[in-house]
Formats: sequence, structure tokens, C-alpha cells
Amino acid sequence: MANNEKQFVKEVADITADFPRWFTDVVLKTELVDYGPVKGTMVIRPYGYAIWENIQNELNRRFKKLGVKNAYFPMFIPESYLKREAEHVEGFAPEVAVVTHAGGAELSEKLVVRPTSETIICNMYAKWMQSYRDLPMLMNQWCNVVRWEKTTRPFLRTSEFLWQEGHTVHSNEEEARDFTMKMLAVYKEFAENALAIPVICGRKTDKEKFAGALETYGMEAMMLDGKSLQAGTSHYLGQNFAKSFDMKFLSKEGKLEYAYSSSWGVSTRLIGAIIMAHGDARGLVLPPVVSPTQIIIVPIAAHKPGVIEKAKEIEQILADMDIRVECDTRDMSPGWKFNEWEMKGVPVRIEIGPRDIENNQCVIVRRDNLEKQVVSLDDLASLKQLLATVQKDMLEKSRKNRDSRIKEGYSLEDIKNACDEGCFVKACWCGERECEDKVKEFAQATSRVMTEEECEGEVCAICGKPAKKKVYFARAY
Amino acid sequence: MANNEKQFVKEVADITADFPRWFTDVVLKTELVDYGPVKGTMVIRPYGYAIWENIQNELNRRFKKLGVKNAYFPMFIPESYLKREAEHVEGFAPEVAVVTHAGGAELSEKLVVRPTSETIICNMYAKWMQSYRDLPMLMNQWCNVVRWEKTTRPFLRTSEFLWQEGHTVHSNEEEARDFTMKMLAVYKEFAENALAIPVICGRKTDKEKFAGALETYGMEAMMLDGKSLQAGTSHYLGQNFAKSFDMKFLSKEGKLEYAYSSSWGVSTRLIGAIIMAHGDARGLVLPPVVSPTQIIIVPIAAHKPGVIEKAKEIEQILADMDIRVECDTRDMSPGWKFNEWEMKGVPVRIEIGPRDIENNQCVIVRRDNLEKQVVSLDDLASLKQLLATVQKDMLEKSRKNRDSRIKEGYSLEDIKNACDEGCFVKACWCGERECEDKVKEFAQATSRVMTEEECEGEVCAICGKPAKKKVYFARAY
Repeated sequence: MANNEKQFVKEVADITADFPRWFTDVVLKTELVDYGPVKGTMVIRPYGYAIWENIQNELNRRFKKLGVKNAYFPMFIPESYLKREAEHVEGFAPEVAVVTHAGGAELSEKLVVRPTSETIICNMYAKWMQSYRDLPMLMNQWCNVVRWEKTTRPFLRTSEFLWQEGHTVHSNEEEARDFTMKMLAVYKEFAENALAIPVICGRKTDKEKFAGALETYGMEAMMLDGKSLQAGTSHYLGQNFAKSFDMKFLSKEGKLEYAYSSSWGVSTRLIGAIIMAHGDARGLVLPPVVSPTQIIIVPIAAHKPGVIEKAKEIEQILADMDIRVECDTRDMSPGWKFNEWEMKGVPVRIEIGPRDIENNQCVIVRRDNLEKQVVSLDDLASLKQLLATVQKDMLEKSRKNRDSRIKEGYSLEDIKNACDEGCFVKACWCGERECEDKVKEFAQATSRVMTEEECEGEVCAICGKPAKKKVYFARAY
Repeated sequence: MANNEKQFVKEVADITADFPRWFTDVVLKTELVDYGPVKGTMVIRPYGYAIWENIQNELNRRFKKLGVKNAYFPMFIPESYLKREAEHVEGFAPEVAVVTHAGGAELSEKLVVRPTSETIICNMYAKWMQSYRDLPMLMNQWCNVVRWEKTTRPFLRTSEFLWQEGHTVHSNEEEARDFTMKMLAVYKEFAENALAIPVICGRKTDKEKFAGALETYGMEAMMLDGKSLQAGTSHYLGQNFAKSFDMKFLSKEGKLEYAYSSSWGVSTRLIGAIIMAHGDARGLVLPPVVSPTQIIIVPIAAHKPGVIEKAKEIEQILADMDIRVECDTRDMSPGWKFNEWEMKGVPVRIEIGPRDIENNQCVIVRRDNLEKQVVSLDDLASLKQLLATVQKDMLEKSRKNRDSRIKEGYSLEDIKNACDEGCFVKACWCGERECEDKVKEFAQATSRVMTEEECEGEVCAICGKPAKKKVYFARAY
């Protein structure tokens, strides 16, 4: 093992010794988030919200390419709507918030604060669709949703959170299935290229699927403690919601048919994923693509003539290159600033002092590996490339770590031991919910996604009966 | 009066004969919006939401220049918070929606769905501020708010709407007052340059001010029917919320002092303002800066060889110029498409057919005045300028119309008559609420903003007592 790898393993061990505490410390100290006054709610502070805005921009660009348009649907859903799809209400009723009074009077029908919007959107789609010519409809909304949770943690699980939820409706099954998978692929590409987080994608078991979906596909990201975080899902809903909400259209053949729908979403959880996939003992390590500030400039001996001016000059040059850059001219020592910006995870730091100016150079420090290099001031254009390199290296580092922590499991003990060691476990499975329940009980792990790998002739790691699927098990957030 | 002005006056008379109906027709037919299932709610459809996104981009850019950062605060406010500021609760309690149950149980404290967020944000600010060094704090959030209204209309007044609400806190009165006015100026510049809507800004009377503010400043826009629409407000809150939420900081002199705050907002109402300030008998007329599509290309005789290709080529050239352009290749007649895109208010239309291609030209039609011109295909770069010209001309046309419809009033009858004619009325006023109530009763009009104009020696148009202020009265949305 190379030295830097050993260092990495040691650091991971250090912070994951009490990972929940490290997480809470980091999110509060870096001012990403704070607790709201109502239990389980969070305030997303400017530094956290700026990450979210970058995520939004990245995803909007990708959605647009698929012809998806943003819209906004009401937050209040008549309680009766939620009840129309049997599985859906069973899944969500226990965690909804309910408005009973408004405008000083009791409401004749209670209103549910959306936990997700399939019901209200399908209701509108039904109204808007007449014939096959109106299809597909491809919409997305960025909004808040509420799910009343018992145990909460900032970004990971909060009563109210922000997300995007896309909803599409199609004239035939193939197209709807195709879109479901296409969005999963978009999410994967986004997670890897924008967040530098490698993900494992696949279909969820029936136990883990979305309430009301025929099939749920998820992407799972390994956090530094080896636990899995569900980072996004794409659901094929078949005609379930179409039948509950009378989403019918006149086909080419002139027949009235039920439409096929999909839905898919990612949330502010992704910020939690970024923190727990890349952080270290110094704090955050943010991937350049979504980092609010990509380069921080710290003047050295800022009182000396010309230093601030040169730092500002560099700032302008980088800003003109569309780099998100900031120059820290506060009246603090450089060391204090180094710590602060390392904690805040800014990908690249520039140090510039009188001697650097004399030599027409600056010192560059990468946050991801703390490597220092000297760059000529004539070569600032190379920093764009450096950011791309940091981004790529972060993904590769994560991937290497993740790949080294996937084990095969042939028994309940195997699964538990691997989870104890902070690994994902690939195991054959008979397809029965009972065996998933056993894994949960014995190893506190759940099935994350099913693989496409062959398991013919193999047996279920839990019950020994013939296997149907190879599945990833892991402890999860 | 020039011919085109006569035409304009006639068209305005036509559509304002039944303006509410025209409005409803237009917003539904152009698919800006639809009614949600819960009374008083609206669905903002992609065409409407795209306008909102452009408004967001325009404002975010302006906010950033003032150092304002976006954040997100929880939607649920403990009922007790609302009650802490006496005026605030009086103003908002009658129209809040209340969550009484969540997660399957009754809540120990009821939660109010934010009608505005002063209370929860001041509560957080209080936690974050220690010393004068932490000030000012300048934050904004884009979110949904709920105000239960009896009479609703899409965009203009809905139970749930989208807005931005900015909240700042400062160490001294002067700075807080200054920021309040600075934001009012930003709003004015934005309304005029982005929405092409001239606005009248000024302080609101006590009767019309925000519940909990010391002073409210508003901007008022004249709609085509002569009614006023409050398009944005900026509030100087003094130490009201600081005292209710214990927003104290250690001053330079080492004393614990209450901070001074401001808040300011604009909402999806602005979309209503755009519609009613610029529309005509054909439908919407959208200002280029916020129009989802700025230029629509309609191929003529699209089946002829080379036409679609040339249209697509033009689309690419314009897209490369950062123009929001679309090429309508649907299998419909050009005439049908002209109607459709005129109804949708796209600022500029390009018609390109075989003969145009032969002559290396295209036909350009402006939506705002329906003027046609022929432009060489070598001169497409001029379209950027054309969009700027349309934007400017729309503002000037609105301003001219507005200015021609402001009257002076010296009696209740004057005020009523002017309002009946679709005008704003400037009148001297004694400063008493009783007189405002009389105007409301007799002329169905309200004071919109106070002017800075001298009224010494003048008398109140309503009661005849010495005047204190010159005020704009108008009927309002």
C-alpha cells in the first residue's frame, strides 16, 4: 500500500470511529445547516444552499436534454387523493403532516402536506391528456416535501426536505420503462461526474420499493463508514396511478387506454452523501463541480504593498474564466484562513505573498490530497484543468475505496461480519422477504439493489434454497 | 393621436371590457397555469414556470451584487412564534393554515404553515449573531407560502404561492433603513428593465403597511384596466422583531443591543402583472428578458427541400448568441402557428420560406407592435439588438399609457370618477385613516403609496382639513 493510501485508511478509521458525531460537528461548524425550531427540521444555511443550487443547475441541464420541463404543483393534497392508490396510502399515511384548519375555520376535507406528488400530478395529467398526441408529458418540480420521521439527522432524514420530483406519463409500457431507466442513467452519470461519488444502480426488492410503484430502481453510494446511502430513485409505476386517477387517453387506434407513468427524485440528502463520501479529519472535501467556492485565494503578508492588489488581480482573472473564486482579505492570519477553508472543503487554495509576486508565481494547494505545487502567474489558465483533475481524482479515490470494500457473502454470518467491517456484501438470495427480514434482524442490514449477475445453481445465503437473484446487502442511512 | 395609438386605445378598451374574463381565458389557453384540486390553489405549468425561472435568475443576479445570499428556512412555524409580535399575529393569524397532526399523532404545539418567515428567520438570526462583527446578515429564500384567501385568482391571489423573501439584520438603524430603500430601488429597476413595467414607488400609509413593520415601501404597477397591482414591497422593521425574538448583539462599545431588520419580497403575482400590463386581444405580450422563448421560427412551405434545414440553421445561430429560440416544425399550417405563438406572446417571430431562402433573407414580426421587416440572413446578429429594442419600446409604451392615466383629485367625486375612467388619482390627504376608509367606501379605491410631493397649504381631498401628504389612490388587485 502506498503511503498516501495508508494515510487515507488511517484518516477514515479516525473519523468513522464516531462518524455521527464527526458528521454533526462538520455540518454545524462549516455552517452548512442548523437545526430548526420544530423537531426534525433543518435550516439550510447559505453555504449549504449554494451546494444545492449547483446541484439544481447540474440536474436542470441534464433534465432539459431529455425534454423534461419544470413546473410547480400545489403542496396541499386532499386526503382522499392519497387514499386512492392502496399501496401508496399504506406507505405514506403514517408519516404525513395534516392541515385541519385554515383561514380561521376547520376544513371540510383535511389536507395532506405532500410527502411526494404522484397523486396530485397524476390528477392534473388526467385533465390535460386527451389523445396520444399529448403524450409523453415530462415534468419536474423542485420543491419541499414533508415526511414526519421519528429519528432525524440534518440532510439525511428531516421532517421537511428539498428535492426534485420528476413525473412522466407515456402512451405505452416500453416508453415508460425506457424513461425510468434513462433517468437512472442520468442520476448515475450525475452522481459520478458532478458529485464524484461512484454509485451502484439496480432494481430494489419488493420490500424496499416505493409505495405504489411496480418497480423501483435505486442508486446506492458507499459512505466512508461503509454504510450505504440511497442517493436517488427512479420508479416505474406502470398503470397503477393511471387507474387510480383515471389517466386515460385516446390511442392511435381510437381506443381509450390507461397511460403508463414513471417518477424519480433526488433530494438534499445528496449533500449528506457528499459530506460522508469525501470528508476527512479536517472537515469537508467538496467536489469542484458543486463546490460553492472552487478556488480560495489567501494573501500572505497581506499588509505588504501590492499583495492584496495581486490577489485581487488573480481573482478577476479566474472569475473571467468562470471559476467560482473568492479572495479572503479578512484581517486574520493565513494559518487561520487555511484551516477555515480546509474545513469548508474548498477544492483548491492559492497562496500569494511578496516572494511569490517577485517570482511571478503562486502556491497551489489541493484540498483532496493536500498536495502543494508552484504555478507561474502566466499559467493561471491551467487551474481550470486542475479543477477537472481534482474532480476526476476524487471520483477515482472513492471508487477504489468502494471497490475494495465489496465482499461476497455465503451466510448470515458472512453478511454480518462484512457489514461490521464496513463493507457491502454481494450475496445470492432466494427472493423471499423472510430472508431479507432475517438479514435485517441478524446483521442490521438491508437489501440495497439486485444485481443482474447470474446466480443459477447457487443457493440463498440465508436459507439455502435455490437462489433467484444476487443482491447487495449493506447497512444503510 | 397617431394611428397605432388609436389602435392601442381601442384594443385596451376591447379587452378591458371584461378584463377578468380575458385574464382567465389567456392564462388557461396559453397553459401558463391551471386550477389545483384544493380551492384557491394553482398549478404553475411549464410555460408559466419558465417565466418564473427567468424572474429568479434576474433577481438572483441583482441580489448577489448587494451581497445577499440564498438560504432555506423550515416551512413550519411554531404557533407561539407567530404570536410574539403583536401586530404580526393580528395581521396573519386569520389567514394561516394550521398543521395539527403529523406522523399519525396530534402535535403538542400546532404548526403554522409560513405566511411569511420573519418570525422563524429572526429566531435563527438571534442564535447566529454574537457581536457587531456578525452583522449585517443578508439572506433571501425562494419558497412557497400559504395565505388562506377567500377570493382567489391565478397568479394574483392564491392560497399557496411562490415568492422570494429577503431578510436582513443590521447593527444600526441607518444601515437597515438604507438597505430597505436599496432593495426598493432594485425592485424598481428590475420591474422596469426586466418586466418592462413602469412602477410608482413610495411609502405605504399605516393602514396599508405590513403587519409588524415600522414602514412599508411598495411599488405599484398600473394594469391595462387602470387598476393598480402591488408588485413588490420592502419593509423597514426597526427593532420590532429584534425585541420579540431577542435579536441582540454585542456592539463595538461592548453593549448588548437590539438589532434592526428589513424584509422584502416579490411573488408569482409578477406573472399576473406582466400579463395585465402588456397583453392584448391576441393574448400575451411577453417582455424579451423574461420570455421563455424569445424568438420563434416558423418555416413556410416546410415540405419544400431545404426549408427545415435553413430554419434549423438559423435556430442554431441564434442559440449560439444565447437567444432563447425555438423552431416550430410541427405539422400545422403557418397561420395556425402564427396565432399560437402570438397568443403565447413570444416577442419576435421569424418566417422563413423557399423564396426567403432564395433571397437570403427572412421575415421578422415583432409581437409588441406586429411590425414586419425583412432581414438579411447575413444580419441575424441584429436580432439581439431587436430584442433589446422591443424590451425598451414595451416599457415606453407602458409608461406613456400609465402617465396619460394619472389624474389629480380634489374631492371624493374626483377620485371615484378618475377610478371609473381607469386612472390613478393623486390627491392631498390629511393623514387620517378615516379618510382612507371613506375613499374605499365611496370609490372602492385604496391609498397605494405616498408621494414626496409638497402639499403645504393644501387641503385633504376627502375631509378638507390641512393636508399632510400627497397620495396615489387607485383601485387595486
